[in-house]
Amino acid sequence: MKPSSILSVATCLLLPFQIMGQEPDNSHEQWKTQCGTPTGQERFPIESYEELPQFVKPDENDWKHVKGTCLSWGQTDVRYAKTAVPMSRTSRLQGISGWRGEKVAAQAVVWTKTGAGALRYEISDFKGPHGQVIPADRFETGFVRYVMTDGLNSDGGGCGHRPDHTVYDSTMVADCIDPYLKEVSLDEMNTQAIWLSCRIPEDITPGTYKGRLTVMDGERTIGSLQMNIRADEHVLPAPSQWHFHLDLWQNPFAVARYYQVPVWSREHLEAMRPLMERLAAAGQKVITASIMHKPWNGQTHDWFESMVTWIKKLDGSWEFKYDVFDRWVEFMMSCGIDKEINCYSMVPWALTFRYYDQATDSMQSIETAPGEPEYEEMWTNMLKSFASHLKGKGWFDICTIAMDERPMEVMRKTIAVIRKADPDFKISLAGTYHPEIEDQLYDYCITINENFPEEVLERRRQEGKISTLYTCCSEGYPNTFTFSPLAEATWIGLYMAAKNVDGYLRWAYNSWPLEPLLDSRFRTWAGGDTYLVYPGNRTSMRFEKLIEGIQTYEKIRILLNEYRENGDTEKSRKLEEMLSSFRIQDLQNAPASAAVGRANAFLKTL
Amino acid sequence: MKPSSILSVATCLLLPFQIMGQEPDNSHEQWKTQCGTPTGQERFPIESYEELPQFVKPDENDWKHVKGTCLSWGQTDVRYAKTAVPMSRTSRLQGISGWRGEKVAAQAVVWTKTGAGALRYEISDFKGPHGQVIPADRFETGFVRYVMTDGLNSDGGGCGHRPDHTVYDSTMVADCIDPYLKEVSLDEMNTQAIWLSCRIPEDITPGTYKGRLTVMDGERTIGSLQMNIRADEHVLPAPSQWHFHLDLWQNPFAVARYYQVPVWSREHLEAMRPLMERLAAAGQKVITASIMHKPWNGQTHDWFESMVTWIKKLDGSWEFKYDVFDRWVEFMMSCGIDKEINCYSMVPWALTFRYYDQATDSMQSIETAPGEPEYEEMWTNMLKSFASHLKGKGWFDICTIAMDERPMEVMRKTIAVIRKADPDFKISLAGTYHPEIEDQLYDYCITINENFPEEVLERRRQEGKISTLYTCCSEGYPNTFTFSPLAEATWIGLYMAAKNVDGYLRWAYNSWPLEPLLDSRFRTWAGGDTYLVYPGNRTSMRFEKLIEGIQTYEKIRILLNEYRENGDTEKSRKLEEMLSSFRIQDLQNAPASAAVGRANAFLKTL
Repeated sequence: MKPSSILSVATCLLLPFQIMGQEPDNSHEQWKTQCGTPTGQERFPIESYEELPQFVKPDENDWKHVKGTCLSWGQTDVRYAKTAVPMSRTSRLQGISGWRGEKVAAQAVVWTKTGAGALRYEISDFKGPHGQVIPADRFETGFVRYVMTDGLNSDGGGCGHRPDHTVYDSTMVADCIDPYLKEVSLDEMNTQAIWLSCRIPEDITPGTYKGRLTVMDGERTIGSLQMNIRADEHVLPAPSQWHFHLDLWQNPFAVARYYQVPVWSREHLEAMRPLMERLAAAGQKVITASIMHKPWNGQTHDWFESMVTWIKKLDGSWEFKYDVFDRWVEFMMSCGIDKEINCYSMVPWALTFRYYDQATDSMQSIETAPGEPEYEEMWTNMLKSFASHLKGKGWFDICTIAMDERPMEVMRKTIAVIRKADPDFKISLAGTYHPEIEDQLYDYCITINENFPEEVLERRRQEGKISTLYTCCSEGYPNTFTFSPLAEATWIGLYMAAKNVDGYLRWAYNSWPLEPLLDSRFRTWAGGDTYLVYPGNRTSMRFEKLIEGIQTYEKIRILLNEYRENGDTEKSRKLEEMLSSFRIQDLQNAPASAAVGRANAFLKTL
Repeated sequence: MKPSSILSVATCLLLPFQIMGQEPDNSHEQWKTQCGTPTGQERFPIESYEELPQFVKPDENDWKHVKGTCLSWGQTDVRYAKTAVPMSRTSRLQGISGWRGEKVAAQAVVWTKTGAGALRYEISDFKGPHGQVIPADRFETGFVRYVMTDGLNSDGGGCGHRPDHTVYDSTMVADCIDPYLKEVSLDEMNTQAIWLSCRIPEDITPGTYKGRLTVMDGERTIGSLQMNIRADEHVLPAPSQWHFHLDLWQNPFAVARYYQVPVWSREHLEAMRPLMERLAAAGQKVITASIMHKPWNGQTHDWFESMVTWIKKLDGSWEFKYDVFDRWVEFMMSCGIDKEINCYSMVPWALTFRYYDQATDSMQSIETAPGEPEYEEMWTNMLKSFASHLKGKGWFDICTIAMDERPMEVMRKTIAVIRKADPDFKISLAGTYHPEIEDQLYDYCITINENFPEEVLERRRQEGKISTLYTCCSEGYPNTFTFSPLAEATWIGLYMAAKNVDGYLRWAYNSWPLEPLLDSRFRTWAGGDTYLVYPGNRTSMRFEKLIEGIQTYEKIRILLNEYRENGDTEKSRKLEEMLSSFRIQDLQNAPASAAVGRANAFLKTL
């Protein structure tokens, strides 16, 4: 699809991305200069915003049998298009089930032939056995909103320069869940989804809790949808207790820029808190820390600054300060993320190390590579100082010196410098599987298309080491792009269980592009690659589905433990058999939703 | 004079100055790109260099009576033009006199109708009474070289945007004294001067010392000039003992750039040492220190960086480091300049204060003005820290917080902040005479066209305060531009004696433009305004003549003291009468050389 009607918008959006380089401030100006603000609204909206225009017009033929305004439960793994008829049959009653402590979700859909001027909704308390109640305010709800995205490359991956409307289609996809928006105006032949989710209280009586979602147009009730939530006997522990090792890299610099607050100020931490608490509630284990300037050479709209202060003194010696690092780590710990601190990077993408130079009273850079005396001198100094600081803070044992994939020789030389500075430093790597250095790596994350040898995985687990898989732009599927099938996000959690690894890593929780609420496309990756959540602490369907998979991973682990303890080998075998059916290559032909659906159905039988 | 032949050179030179802004590195590239290197030589020559071309062709008519190659003593206050016949009568014997310890100078001139392929010179030992000798190696000698300059404005001053060949003439003037050049090739109808100077040893027997300068063309002797130096009974003390308060601002950053050495490195200090020792030998009293970034908003080709390290810590508090400041001050003291440290500036030309910001790991700036709380908070912190550091170093009593002229209200507010931080801080100002704040100023320098009230001057002297006069671009005369009559430099010293002030200030000892050996023009001031000495530790005729005037000032002071001690009121009266004849307005009609000549003649009668 290459509708010419979108070109003007796409071209306009294109410019700032191409021009901005890595200067966020300039790029804002560029956007204004080139395009005005595309939707006429203020830059960087937080509570209220207007989406980019929908460019796919409704097909009257599709809508001809629709009468008035319709309402139905939908599925949580479908992105309902704005101008298409969402379904042919409606469903007014939905039963969902979950463990106590588990987050469950549903999606309702409204579609209208005639338009609706003031669409809004209300959710009731959910009433269960013995007069117990899940109160309405336990639900997180929101209208589902649309964001601009693109698509995969012709080679099936998601890496490559964008936005480029000569290569990629642009589409508006449902993704963001907006709790601020209380009322929506729908044009003729428009569809609007409503998302609701709820963490079932751990302490309620198991049983069925009944409630409803009522949808109105102004004062007029369109209809009500009934929902029965069955709370299972089982209790899913709090996310902090989950085994699943979730590692979504955080970008505090994007938040400071988007919220236009001074970096590391009280306002900055306040802006980040709900976002990072949301991440903690998904089971995040790792604090992403940058210990030098631009560990990824500014690959994000807001590049990472060093959280460690590097000062080269007049006499040539180094001075390191950790005030920023400490503030960030302590803040993240206060949000509930406190299991690991991964420090990037001794081997940044560009081997350039910036520091404040006292002699010239300016920022200077050294270009040096592992194996060079200057590199070793600099990093040995830094790591010794850092180790001492971490030990003082009691963080040494949860801290890793973190690398991205680099040539073997470079990684070996880097590890040698680390070991020389402090042999007990933990090291992490996200990259290809390398048997040569595997034993050096405390936290080892390999690509989802690779496998740890089984005996290695077992040994690593016994040694208390972490072994996980990752996806990035390379994987067409499964993935969490804004255009990825939503069930793939869930599928990921199940696959981690199938592969018996500890968890999953993705490089960007919130490395927002210029206007993430409007346009998820960015520079050299498929749309949505750089973030899973939106400004204003808005979650996304993708992120919610990812959490669903993580929860399933935890439930499987708990069940397997139960069976093992009870000697219930039959159930174990069946469960493992079901898991073994999860194969990446199958996603080529069968949608992830089918596999996930089967797994969920199976789990209900246990 | 606007010879069209110079336009191509002038235009070429023009470009880098206009384009460069304040980025020396870029500007070098600009020069190359626009013009190639004008003389085809490497950038920033030190030992050997080629001058820009002479664009005034010899007038054959003038030269028609000249035969072969001629040789004569010239005068030290004449810039002999390259292509003009320097004089009509030759003088082979010259007598000069000086006190023991005084530096004396002479200029020889060679001119040739036919050209000279390998002009060189030798100086003999100078033989005096009782077999005593001033050895040849006591003489500093050099061929006089030509540099591009411009001229005064039509309003008679020297301030205004340059180079601009539509407004200012460009001329090549004799100024630099080059000790490296051992042999010169002269074209037909060319003139070449040779400068020689010598500090008469303090410990030799008074009397006449006879020697000669021999000039050769290759192996052929052109001739010899005889010189008798009469060493007076009087002894001029070493420059460090001079009362004359010389304050020529030093620019270490220009030296680092020109010599292409890292700022504050050992190589940098080595490059500066002969230059600063030369300054000390002229009687310099003051170390120029920059305590913030760009105190003069980058008015020099190489702007002043802060010698104090300003760090704004994450918690908002300030940290100051003095490593650079200490290195500079200690270096200057080791060169013999140790009487005063003037620290610029709490009231810079642009009220912008740059610092290293830990939160953003970048250089940041605050814009704040005296009277604002932020300004007071910042400077009170800095000055308290600075006072404590200076006291630890034992420098507090010789250090001043230094200002340039600012509106009275601004200066008052600034002084209030200083007094609040430490009431004992010394303060200096170079600006207009303001009776309102005069008593607050330890070192007060006013423009040469103003006068301190006599009783104020007397009181200040009794209080141990310094009172001096300055010239800058505003004064068409007297001045030390590369086109100023050389006697004006000497005249200045005499005028300071006449005005009974303590000395003289000029804003630039060595704020070199891009290529100071080639072109003395710069941005918004008359040619040579920004420097008095040249790279390679080359002195200038201007600087030597300035020293001559300072020595005369010292001699007058010593003589007046002698007369006072001896009760010789007649000589005192005559001397003061002679001095009272020094009036700036007279320079409009009578050249400075006449007044200086009269004064010298008079002094010989005493």
